[in-house]
Amino acid sequence: MINFTVGPVQSSDLVRSIGGEQVPYFRTAEFSKIMLENEELMKKFSGAEDEARVIFITGSGTASMEAVVANTLTEQDKVLIVNGGSFGQRFVQLCEIYGISYSEIKLDVGKALTEKHLQAYENQGFTAFMVNVHETSTGVHYDLHMISEFCKRNQMFLVVDAISSFLADEFDMKEFGVDVMITGSQKALACPPGISMIVLSVKAVERVESNRPKCMYLDLKSALKNGERGQTPFTPAVGILRQIHARLKEIESAGGVETEIKKIGILAEDFRNKIKELPFDIVSESMSNAVTPLHPLTASANDIFLTLKDEYGIWVCPNGGELKDAVFRVGHIGNLTTEDNDKLIDALKDMQKRGLI
Amino acid sequence: MINFTVGPVQSSDLVRSIGGEQVPYFRTAEFSKIMLENEELMKKFSGAEDEARVIFITGSGTASMEAVVANTLTEQDKVLIVNGGSFGQRFVQLCEIYGISYSEIKLDVGKALTEKHLQAYENQGFTAFMVNVHETSTGVHYDLHMISEFCKRNQMFLVVDAISSFLADEFDMKEFGVDVMITGSQKALACPPGISMIVLSVKAVERVESNRPKCMYLDLKSALKNGERGQTPFTPAVGILRQIHARLKEIESAGGVETEIKKIGILAEDFRNKIKELPFDIVSESMSNAVTPLHPLTASANDIFLTLKDEYGIWVCPNGGELKDAVFRVGHIGNLTTEDNDKLIDALKDMQKRGLI
Repeated sequence: MINFTVGPVQSSDLVRSIGGEQVPYFRTAEFSKIMLENEELMKKFSGAEDEARVIFITGSGTASMEAVVANTLTEQDKVLIVNGGSFGQRFVQLCEIYGISYSEIKLDVGKALTEKHLQAYENQGFTAFMVNVHETSTGVHYDLHMISEFCKRNQMFLVVDAISSFLADEFDMKEFGVDVMITGSQKALACPPGISMIVLSVKAVERVESNRPKCMYLDLKSALKNGERGQTPFTPAVGILRQIHARLKEIESAGGVETEIKKIGILAEDFRNKIKELPFDIVSESMSNAVTPLHPLTASANDIFLTLKDEYGIWVCPNGGELKDAVFRVGHIGNLTTEDNDKLIDALKDMQKRGLI
Repeated sequence: MINFTVGPVQSSDLVRSIGGEQVPYFRTAEFSKIMLENEELMKKFSGAEDEARVIFITGSGTASMEAVVANTLTEQDKVLIVNGGSFGQRFVQLCEIYGISYSEIKLDVGKALTEKHLQAYENQGFTAFMVNVHETSTGVHYDLHMISEFCKRNQMFLVVDAISSFLADEFDMKEFGVDVMITGSQKALACPPGISMIVLSVKAVERVESNRPKCMYLDLKSALKNGERGQTPFTPAVGILRQIHARLKEIESAGGVETEIKKIGILAEDFRNKIKELPFDIVSESMSNAVTPLHPLTASANDIFLTLKDEYGIWVCPNGGELKDAVFRVGHIGNLTTEDNDKLIDALKDMQKRGLI
């Protein structure tokens, strides 16, 4: 199978080979060293300040989204949320669960965030801003330059879910004044799913230290304390953390985060050029390099997903809910090449010949 | 390295080879089938009733312990907790966090639970009982026959953390009237850490359905609903779930849970016979097959752990906190043989010759 989904994605040979090894015992200096190096490289690649901290949660991206809401926000906050799809909606639900006041900017499917959307919220006493910089469900990448300026003008604490954007799109915590960045192991990091990561600015660490979240498993204070010595409060997904270590080092030695972003950008551009001759509309006004969201003009998106899976050995990423028949997505993250793009285009052309699209 | 810890433990070649494969996309009928088979085999091996349900949490055993407290208990409950070490203490903390009334039976290190401990709590209006049937931190395995009779007499909801005991010791939910069993991927299941499992009786499912937990990530109602079609609410550790599938099938085809328990029992007995000639006391009054807790009479437990790791290529399991120098543990779970036991005994004998123990 060739995997064009947005996670889990294809891993490198090195990452896979570590997956095939025995998992070592982890309450050791050797594993602590790996974790401290993971923290340093994550800080480097996210452009975090020197005193920033990184937490590795054994759980999905949602576990980290919830941990961030529960540990860095309080009932005294007034939060502005960009809600452009199912992941924006998740931040809304989390604020509701934790009793945090919020307003939401609701965007239609595929629509970009503009200055006009933000204007109404200037100088309205908002204390925090939450955005899924790449709304993975619809493939819309928001303008972080604009968001950053807005937050700086309004002294807002800026939380960025970059789960599917980290390593795929330009990003720099210091430059954009981002206080919290969230990502996951199975997106552009191209490791198996099971770990999500939270990078915390100094300001975010201070918020964590003065907060009193209820959940034990998602208690970031305890994670920060254990992390000082490269450990975790509970048994983590040790194997995946070792794979993350190898992959971060791989990115480092290949030229760093800029090289990785460029590589994904080239793959995305290649695919977007090749798909032009086929009966699809791109549904996003503003795309991430990570994924191309497509609306088929002549067939059901879910049928295309199933046919590619069952008859061509190719996974693209289906959508759920209301978009099930309208949209599917093609990912450009993970260990893919332009030759893989060709195979997908050939499969789609063959489906066209067969009258399936 | 030979790994005698209590998790992560050594995996079979088949489980490792799956760890080396690409992780497939999972919102598919193919992955759902794997998950539904995982549920059936977990029910079978835990002796659950036909209508029981199984939830797979991407997280450590603590994530599942917390999910069980938050989703199956309420402020109307009055819970009795056996607290014989750090995992018993964790149930106590969780009840405090969630405002659930409890009494605890505190046991000294290594001590068994007896009828005498339970007597004071007969007919006192307790509604639920929580026990780590194998208190992994000190290697004490409690008498589940006795606990079961007590709970039946007192109509108590019985929650058993069997994280390190499942597949290593005799266990049957129906026979013992257990309502909730918790276990993890990295113990006798011998897969990488990252997944914990909760088996829920019909009564436990009813408790979940009528409860309103605050946490989104640990919301078991949503997990049950998604599980009906073999899916999870959030991206799970797909790779580990596939390894669990292979391992459950492996146990099944090797003769089932009885064969696995017998195998671990033989390994434990072999080691306990061989260790007799060395300067160690066994600190537990009542052991699980999973682990032998040892108190060295002539040296620091932590020094022994470090020397075995650094000079002999062997991991045993260190203890933390107050027991750091007093106790280390030797596990009998995972892909180990009596020849591995011999290597550990030989290493210890060599350390004795060198005057290190």
